[in-house]
Amino acid sequence: MRYPSQATIIEVGPRDGLQNEAVHVPTDAKVRFVDMLSDAGLPVVEVTSFVHPKAVPRMADAHEVLRAIRQKPGVRYPVLVPNSRGLERALAAGAREIALFTAATESFTRANINRTIDQSIDDARAVIQAARPHGARIRAYVSTAFACPFEGPVPPEQVAGICARLLDAGAEQIGLGDTIGAATPADVSRLLDRVLGLAPLDGWGMHFHDTRGTALANVVRSLDYGIAVFDSAAGGLGGCPFAGPNATGNLATEDLVYLLDGLGVETGVSLPRVMDATRFICARLDHAPTSKVFQAGGRLVPKPLATA
Amino acid sequence: MRYPSQATIIEVGPRDGLQNEAVHVPTDAKVRFVDMLSDAGLPVVEVTSFVHPKAVPRMADAHEVLRAIRQKPGVRYPVLVPNSRGLERALAAGAREIALFTAATESFTRANINRTIDQSIDDARAVIQAARPHGARIRAYVSTAFACPFEGPVPPEQVAGICARLLDAGAEQIGLGDTIGAATPADVSRLLDRVLGLAPLDGWGMHFHDTRGTALANVVRSLDYGIAVFDSAAGGLGGCPFAGPNATGNLATEDLVYLLDGLGVETGVSLPRVMDATRFICARLDHAPTSKVFQAGGRLVPKPLATA
Repeated sequence: MRYPSQATIIEVGPRDGLQNEAVHVPTDAKVRFVDMLSDAGLPVVEVTSFVHPKAVPRMADAHEVLRAIRQKPGVRYPVLVPNSRGLERALAAGAREIALFTAATESFTRANINRTIDQSIDDARAVIQAARPHGARIRAYVSTAFACPFEGPVPPEQVAGICARLLDAGAEQIGLGDTIGAATPADVSRLLDRVLGLAPLDGWGMHFHDTRGTALANVVRSLDYGIAVFDSAAGGLGGCPFAGPNATGNLATEDLVYLLDGLGVETGVSLPRVMDATRFICARLDHAPTSKVFQAGGRLVPKPLATA
Repeated sequence: MRYPSQATIIEVGPRDGLQNEAVHVPTDAKVRFVDMLSDAGLPVVEVTSFVHPKAVPRMADAHEVLRAIRQKPGVRYPVLVPNSRGLERALAAGAREIALFTAATESFTRANINRTIDQSIDDARAVIQAARPHGARIRAYVSTAFACPFEGPVPPEQVAGICARLLDAGAEQIGLGDTIGAATPADVSRLLDRVLGLAPLDGWGMHFHDTRGTALANVVRSLDYGIAVFDSAAGGLGGCPFAGPNATGNLATEDLVYLLDGLGVETGVSLPRVMDATRFICARLDHAPTSKVFQAGGRLVPKPLATA
């Protein structure tokens, strides 16, 4: 019970969520979704991705979305950037925080972004150097940090090597991704035991998927280590397209907030208002939210016994 | 990481699961379901309930089911029994292990079984005394041990009082139920800190529902305390009818097995064979399994990259 007293939730629904949804969401609905999330108290909302519009048509309106959101003071609005060209577009749209991405396995990196790991780290280094004069904050995702859909379990040593190179390249925070939701708390321990020495504690965040139901258990184990930065997506939107046809995706923000509230870890996030945002965006998608807390109707509200 | 090396999963799908499903399952399918579960390596399968057939028509074939299953040596087959009349029927059908039930809150006990807590404990005492000459093993459930749909959060002190009375009445093991799936690991700690002194460690089991996604995190916290008995239902069948219209129910056996396998806690249960049992029974129900591991297709099986 030596948890951090406070944790930062990085809301990735508008980017990681919507990017992987089958239905295209209109720009104005994306903007409203981001604004509802910041109004719900989320301190960081990953807004969009400046990938090439041909590669990810869902994110072709990245510029418009980032310009149109109502940026609340104190809230951070990172955007995903794959390379120097994406960085230029992101900066032109006013981005002040950048998220980069690579993965711990060659085959996933190739399937996901058609690069080798070496190439993706070269890209990251170039983006970081170009971003630095603009004062942009830099976060880097390491996907398949626990398991790879093509290569199976990933050795912590391999992940540590990638993290060290990203830190050396100038990344300020690393998000360790359980991209296909295969990790258990034992895997979390094994990886954190290996990597935490590479950077200060606040240099780490965890990006869990709930594909096999273990995400919250993994959050608790991460809290045991003092980690206090967690990614999640409102409603549990999105998920890795390589994880399987019916596989559910990102840890739902509602489920994470419910857990952290219960543990007494402060987040500043309003659960009912996150549920409002989920309700809003899922009305524009082709499926119901996968968030268990959402499905349960939120926090427990006792109903007096009718026959009492 | 001081987990028990081994844990016992009590499979409650055939009883707690099917009892709360909208669709009636034919007797022969129930029998086959139980047999598939024991073949999957589950060491304890709660088979049925000897409640009054008018109260729970789904379980009217309790006698037939218990007589027809293929009882594997070493596997325990408890049945639920509400009172002395139910015990007579259970013993007549050959039951050798009995599960009793009450709850930690008056309003739930009234809504669920139309008794006061005092009456239900009197019933339990009478059943235990009548069962003892037959050598039947006795387990007792305490529902709403964390939260009540009518009364909200339940103080650990209140739960401890009920547990003490059941132990005094002769219960050999108590299953602490998070009946509506509201607990977080902090609640688990608070309750276990209060009750564990009342009985030896193997006198406790945990019955978590995954209504708000916290069940596996709660299992991990229970393991931290050395508890090694967990209830679950194949596929996540069932759930408390008072938990809400869309609320999901019991912790899925697949999800529990996946977690415990990952933690290196031995269960003797084959995940693929539990999934076979889930597939079999859900083909006879009106909905897909809620188990996340089932939805994900089971354990991670790496697929070579097509373009490699």
